[in-house]
Amino acid sequence: MPITVKALQKTSADAPFEVRTIERRDPRPDDVVIAIKAAGICHSDIHTIREEWGPVTYPLAVGHEIAGVVEAVGDAVTRVSVGDRVGVGCLVNSCGECEECRNDQEQSCLNGNVGTYASTDVDGTTTQGGYSEKVVVNERFVLRLPDALDFDVAAPLLCAGITTYSPLATWNVQEGQKVAVLGLGGLGHMGVQIAAARSADVTVLSRSLKKEDLAKELGASRTLSTTEDGFFDDHAGEFDLILNTVSADIDLNAYLRLLKPRGVMACVGAPPTPMPLGIFSLIGGRKVLTGSDIGGIAQTQEMLDFCAEHGFGARIEKIGVDEVDAAYERVVDGDVLFRFVIDTATFADAEPVN
Amino acid sequence: MPITVKALQKTSADAPFEVRTIERRDPRPDDVVIAIKAAGICHSDIHTIREEWGPVTYPLAVGHEIAGVVEAVGDAVTRVSVGDRVGVGCLVNSCGECEECRNDQEQSCLNGNVGTYASTDVDGTTTQGGYSEKVVVNERFVLRLPDALDFDVAAPLLCAGITTYSPLATWNVQEGQKVAVLGLGGLGHMGVQIAAARSADVTVLSRSLKKEDLAKELGASRTLSTTEDGFFDDHAGEFDLILNTVSADIDLNAYLRLLKPRGVMACVGAPPTPMPLGIFSLIGGRKVLTGSDIGGIAQTQEMLDFCAEHGFGARIEKIGVDEVDAAYERVVDGDVLFRFVIDTATFADAEPVN
Repeated sequence: MPITVKALQKTSADAPFEVRTIERRDPRPDDVVIAIKAAGICHSDIHTIREEWGPVTYPLAVGHEIAGVVEAVGDAVTRVSVGDRVGVGCLVNSCGECEECRNDQEQSCLNGNVGTYASTDVDGTTTQGGYSEKVVVNERFVLRLPDALDFDVAAPLLCAGITTYSPLATWNVQEGQKVAVLGLGGLGHMGVQIAAARSADVTVLSRSLKKEDLAKELGASRTLSTTEDGFFDDHAGEFDLILNTVSADIDLNAYLRLLKPRGVMACVGAPPTPMPLGIFSLIGGRKVLTGSDIGGIAQTQEMLDFCAEHGFGARIEKIGVDEVDAAYERVVDGDVLFRFVIDTATFADAEPVN
Repeated sequence: MPITVKALQKTSADAPFEVRTIERRDPRPDDVVIAIKAAGICHSDIHTIREEWGPVTYPLAVGHEIAGVVEAVGDAVTRVSVGDRVGVGCLVNSCGECEECRNDQEQSCLNGNVGTYASTDVDGTTTQGGYSEKVVVNERFVLRLPDALDFDVAAPLLCAGITTYSPLATWNVQEGQKVAVLGLGGLGHMGVQIAAARSADVTVLSRSLKKEDLAKELGASRTLSTTEDGFFDDHAGEFDLILNTVSADIDLNAYLRLLKPRGVMACVGAPPTPMPLGIFSLIGGRKVLTGSDIGGIAQTQEMLDFCAEHGFGARIEKIGVDEVDAAYERVVDGDVLFRFVIDTATFADAEPVN
């Protein structure tokens, strides 16, 4: 029998959020029912629900940074038990059989994975995200939350955390290396903390120096303004890795010059339109330009354990379900330090419209 | 006392080649005097001596694919002896002390390496390349030619060989992988042979199928025409690595689609102008776009040994010193299978103009 829960949905791209009742499926043998405690607001949520990345089916609840407690499990579930603290990120299913899934790269599942929201689920329904009281998820996509991480600071790790952790781990950022983090927002502030915890010397690159103190607090040794005269000449050949977290147009060739030989520029933010790239920028010093999208489930667990071990989560601002529309405007304006997280306890007082 | 030898030089970008006498420096303690037997013609030679890549100092002899025999050595030379068969590639010196040199990446020397031609040598003179009877080179930049490789088929390995070997080795191309080689010219024909010798399944990508039989002979399992309808859809997600050897504009985003998740596109050819790159082409499947420039000396030796072990060199057309102007036109027209090599014995009958 399906589970009826409250969720925060939009009924069209332009509509405000409404608290509505939705049905979560009766757990299958390998499903986990999670009582959601906190749900982060990711810029992707905004792009998706406003149809900036293409059409979606309404009503829709977004949210793929989910932290909560296991409320029930299907008969075949072995990985978690009722009462466990858990998280769910951007994925809720994948084929499990293709080369990518077998290599713990479910985010690249060759048969198409199932996104946490706005995706077609295995039963043909549209997945509804974490702006909700509960969610039902296949156990393979349920992460264990270490005790050291509170629900609210853990939730954003499930997307912003793994998105930045994955390239830093994949390219083996380590002590003795100089890492630049371009942009200090939701992604960037995780990138700084993770790179610093990996003992790299971290520089924040930003247009202005206004977040300099915050950057230092997060573990950066310095902040440099990219708009300063001669910036790209003064810092040529300085970095082992640049983590690009911004989705604005940048001069790729200028940034590639900042890399040491064999340096890596890993992009997790991306502008919607192509940018000019000179191949000579890559040939001299055989530099690497790459992108990265979230990460696999095993690496997501590794990231959660890493953050707990190093004693940090996301820096957040907690909001109620009635504050999400306003929060969206502030995210678009870059006015948040560094992630909004919805306290799902505030669903209790909300009257559903349906 | 300097050594006077004949060389093939131009006195201006537009002048024809002339046989002229030049002086090679008296060998220093760590220098090797090499009697050149064969010198390959690389497209870079043409770009450089025609000042297509910037101004150069004339008279100039180019040529950085050099095979010959040691004729004399300085007192401190330990690596080679008189009579040894040797090669010299694109570099004749580097600082030897920076991080890159210490890591066997002399091509990226942080203090500026010395190119085999048109470069400022440690003594302030302009280096003169391999279109010449002899060359004097620091022993650190002298490679040992395996007996199995004739001078003429070995010479092009010193640039075209290492340029294609290096990315294939660096990215660990191996059995079970699908490699695409884009373009079947001087670089591409080496890339095919090397990738096939590394047991990869090699596909040649070319506008036309006219070199299909040759590609097969070199070790490719097939040739695909990139101009066929639906080509980029039909072969999406197929390759572990694409070696791009062409210097024409290509649709980077379309080629990146041909890669499997985590696939690598390594560019060794490059058009002079930037091309549009969509970062989303890299993020989905976390693909890698990189460039590669020749290779370090240790890897160049490894490449020579590898080619000898697998029984192949470059496919060449041998020419005399009086045929180089005509050969240049044919290289520009793509009319050579696959490399011209100057037989330096033909200097014997040539009368220098100076």
